[in-house]
Amino acid sequence: MPHLVIYYTRNLDDETDIDRLCRSLADAILEIKDDAGSPVFPEGGIRVLAYPAAYSAISDGGAAGRRAKTHQGAASGDPGDYAFIYLNLRIGKGRDEVIHQAIGVALTKVVHEHFEPLFDARHIGITFQIDEGREVFDSKHSSIHPLFSK
Amino acid sequence: MPHLVIYYTRNLDDETDIDRLCRSLADAILEIKDDAGSPVFPEGGIRVLAYPAAYSAISDGGAAGRRAKTHQGAASGDPGDYAFIYLNLRIGKGRDEVIHQAIGVALTKVVHEHFEPLFDARHIGITFQIDEGREVFDSKHSSIHPLFSK
Amino acid sequence: MPHLVIYYTRNLDDETDIDRLCRSLADAILEIKDDAGSPVFPEGGIRVLAYPAAYSAISDGGAAGRRAKTHQGAASGDPGDYAFIYLNLRIGKGRDEVIHQAIGVALTKVVHEHFEPLFDARHIGITFQIDEGREVFDSKHSSIHPLFSK
Repeated sequence: MPHLVIYYTRNLDDETDIDRLCRSLADAILEIKDDAGSPVFPEGGIRVLAYPAAYSAISDGGAAGRRAKTHQGAASGDPGDYAFIYLNLRIGKGRDEVIHQAIGVALTKVVHEHFEPLFDARHIGITFQIDEGREVFDSKHSSIHPLFSK
Repeated sequence: MPHLVIYYTRNLDDETDIDRLCRSLADAILEIKDDAGSPVFPEGGIRVLAYPAAYSAISDGGAAGRRAKTHQGAASGDPGDYAFIYLNLRIGKGRDEVIHQAIGVALTKVVHEHFEPLFDARHIGITFQIDEGREVFDSKHSSIHPLFSK
Repeated sequence: MPHLVIYYTRNLDDETDIDRLCRSLADAILEIKDDAGSPVFPEGGIRVLAYPAAYSAISDGGAAGRRAKTHQGAASGDPGDYAFIYLNLRIGKGRDEVIHQAIGVALTKVVHEHFEPLFDARHIGITFQIDEGREVFDSKHSSIHPLFSK
């Protein structure tokens, strides 16, 4: 952990580089430190996975966007062509609320910077949430973690 | 929010229109009202995303279906070719149980109407669940919501 | 239920048979018995779905793997080409911790056996977790379950 899973409408693949977003987010997660200056997450445990949806339906399907004619910058040229991206970060149990907020603020900043050009140009919704895992069983096996053991 | 994520076996793509299901569900979510007649969900926040699985394994892999020879209407012609669809609706915290039930009943109706022809013809499992988000951090940014502000 | 959703980096599709992993896991779930020797899960309710990510970013992006030059067996030949697989099993509410552990141990064994050849050859992280569903609404409709009613 942590795992960041990104669900999004596939029209975004024509307009922005989701692969670069994944890397930017992983880099930002690597940089998060606690009050003592120690990394909050293990380097080997950081994973970001992104999934464009095969099908989607957003809000009213575009009617309000077409009426408003604001934000026409979708690659399709259709102001009713809404985009949506949902970023869900799952972290382990037991960190305190201050850390949760710090993680959320740091990653929200990365997401907003990435999407700033699109946000001004097209109709898009962005939601980022952090879930604290409440798993009842957990097993991990990794040949990546040992690369970072001192 | 709300977010409805649909996970399904890809044999369904040969047999039904999942894009239309997404739109029907979004439309149904838009229509849900509370006792005072107000919409339960913000119009700009409704998102439905559907994902066919690259690989899947359902139940016993088809043996019981082939023995029974009931419900042979799979496009593949194989009564052991099971289908499965899981619909997970994530909503915000704080609504009461009566609303949860009303949402669930309304959307289950849409799902069952959509799949009625298939349900009578093939072996298929349909599960719909609502989760109340328990996120520890949440940030939203949208140029869709303002389209609906009065 | 139960539902097992598998999220993974798509480099694994060149190196191992995820379809076979799905089947092995479904078979193992079918075999899980309680103390009285009864199946823990309904045969008709077992579903495994696997999703390769379109994009991903793992750990430091490969720098430590390239420095270490251990585990060079990725199909790409790049020791910095990390792989990751996350297996999330969602089960119904109300089983006790002993059963949770038994399920987890049984399925972890299947996962580790499947990945043993890769684990010794490449940099890979494997995480398996069980979540107990906390849904606030649930509806099921199935023409698979009746195949198994006695």
